[in-house]
Amino acid sequence: MSATDYAKLAIEQVIAEWQKQNKRVDDMLSKFSAEQFHSEIAPGKNTGIYLLGHLIAVNDNIHTFLGFERSYGHYEEMFVKNADKSGFTFPPLEELKIAWHKMNEALAKNFSSLSTEDWFTKHTAVSQADFEANPQRNKLNIVINRTNHQSYHVGQMVLLG
Amino acid sequence: MSATDYAKLAIEQVIAEWQKQNKRVDDMLSKFSAEQFHSEIAPGKNTGIYLLGHLIAVNDNIHTFLGFERSYGHYEEMFVKNADKSGFTFPPLEELKIAWHKMNEALAKNFSSLSTEDWFTKHTAVSQADFEANPQRNKLNIVINRTNHQSYHVGQMVLLG
Repeated sequence: MSATDYAKLAIEQVIAEWQKQNKRVDDMLSKFSAEQFHSEIAPGKNTGIYLLGHLIAVNDNIHTFLGFERSYGHYEEMFVKNADKSGFTFPPLEELKIAWHKMNEALAKNFSSLSTEDWFTKHTAVSQADFEANPQRNKLNIVINRTNHQSYHVGQMVLLG
Repeated sequence: MSATDYAKLAIEQVIAEWQKQNKRVDDMLSKFSAEQFHSEIAPGKNTGIYLLGHLIAVNDNIHTFLGFERSYGHYEEMFVKNADKSGFTFPPLEELKIAWHKMNEALAKNFSSLSTEDWFTKHTAVSQADFEANPQRNKLNIVINRTNHQSYHVGQMVLLG
């Protein structure tokens, strides 16, 4: 296998893990009731619906880091900038479910439009100077990091079950 | 940047995320009391000490998948093959803390001994035929996957705080 193939394979593996973690959320969306989603993962902690909205807002924002347009910027205020139970009226669960799937379709399409080289270019939130000082601050790193962010919250959401 | 550099960079990024997630466990080990570690993450769910032992057993087993020798195989019975509260007497928290750090030192040393090419060779638990059918079943994938496994449980362990 050539070095180019290795780089391409590494990217495919990062995306495969991403998809695998999305599948775990898909499964919970099918399995858990609305009542479960409106419960807390543990007494006094976040609700399932907040965590779902949080994952949509954070993952949709991957679009921004990769130079694409995001669709759910309006979720950021209630699901990222503010904690659960801050007094916001959350969208209905069905709306969030649709947003989750639409967002993942858009991300998959945009991921597949990037070349191996594109993945190693800087993401949009880092300056050229900072990127040159640390070439790990590239687009691939956003997906590696957000996959782990999602796994962290999936570990919490399973407690609803 | 050459294609070889990209492959090397991707590996470094996977390992950097791994180290970042280890740091989160390190922080909890310093911050949480023994009493917190012996509590459940949520009513009726796993205890912190079980999850810590589970992470040590699973992560130490990365050695096996990568062709190195593991040191904590004796933790597998109580922390992987059996659920929490199966009647085992767990090792003292201090022993687990030492094991956690020693294991990570050993993993870091062994990771750094692998070449870019080594990371894309098959891990030890897949057959040559299965690996040829799916070249993603390589050593790098073990680290990508175990990092997410750890993030999942870290998301649960923070609930002890």
